[in-house]
Amino acid sequence: MTEIRKATADDQDAIWHIIRPVIATGDTYCFAPDSSREKMLSYWCHDDKYTYVATVEDNVAGTFILKDNQVDLGSHVANASYMVSAGYERQGIGQRMGEYSIQEARRLGYRAMQFNIVVKSNERAVRLWQKLGFDIIGEIPDAFNHAQLSYTNAYIMYRKL
Amino acid sequence: MTEIRKATADDQDAIWHIIRPVIATGDTYCFAPDSSREKMLSYWCHDDKYTYVATVEDNVAGTFILKDNQVDLGSHVANASYMVSAGYERQGIGQRMGEYSIQEARRLGYRAMQFNIVVKSNERAVRLWQKLGFDIIGEIPDAFNHAQLSYTNAYIMYRKL
Repeated sequence: MTEIRKATADDQDAIWHIIRPVIATGDTYCFAPDSSREKMLSYWCHDDKYTYVATVEDNVAGTFILKDNQVDLGSHVANASYMVSAGYERQGIGQRMGEYSIQEARRLGYRAMQFNIVVKSNERAVRLWQKLGFDIIGEIPDAFNHAQLSYTNAYIMYRKL
Repeated sequence: MTEIRKATADDQDAIWHIIRPVIATGDTYCFAPDSSREKMLSYWCHDDKYTYVATVEDNVAGTFILKDNQVDLGSHVANASYMVSAGYERQGIGQRMGEYSIQEARRLGYRAMQFNIVVKSNERAVRLWQKLGFDIIGEIPDAFNHAQLSYTNAYIMYRKL
């Protein structure tokens, strides 16, 4: 049973243990594969974002963030990022976090949600977001310097809330 | 004759005098129309960006910034913003800055340039970027809370360098 709650300072070790292997592959997130714990936690847990964890039997199995995609006159559109722990893939935790984040963004007053750089080759992610109601509204040529594929395209995805 | 150079600390008054009326109209930039000098200069002149001014007979007539559009594995794509001084519109200064920024971004090693939120109703800007080789690669519904039009669409524009 996956539960979702706001992250606390006590979750930082667990969040870093999720982030490190996710970025190490260099195939989904822009963060350099060798980004430091300090850099990543100061981004992921910064007070300009809402930070959440998904737990399974009290173990942190995933984490996501919600934030304004633009300042002020663009701040009614949310942006979000999601990571699942290395031991918990393919158990529906990404989808559960996605669904929760949509509800939560609506509750926070956002009118839409936008992903700015969904790596096109990350087909599972693209399919998941489409399943959750996101449309591909643009494709950026060579947006992402992929560890295996070098410069590769990325999608901009969007849904109203 | 328009000249372009890196901004210095001495340009901050002039840059603020450009920014204030540009954002006050609430029809082109996301910054709240009443954003403070401190907020705007700490954004526009932050050391994560390259900041330039365009001068006409030693008067600062425009300013623009160049920065990474994404971190690390997305940092080969530049993002830029441009503002022309209230007294110097429609003299080609925007175009001159645009052309210069493309050359400069190339020189700095960027491979492409992307604008994330070009307000669709800002037709002069859209036409200028198209003239300078940018394509519309996506349209975001209701991306911008326009002072007159309320929620209105914006384009994502892109060109290779």
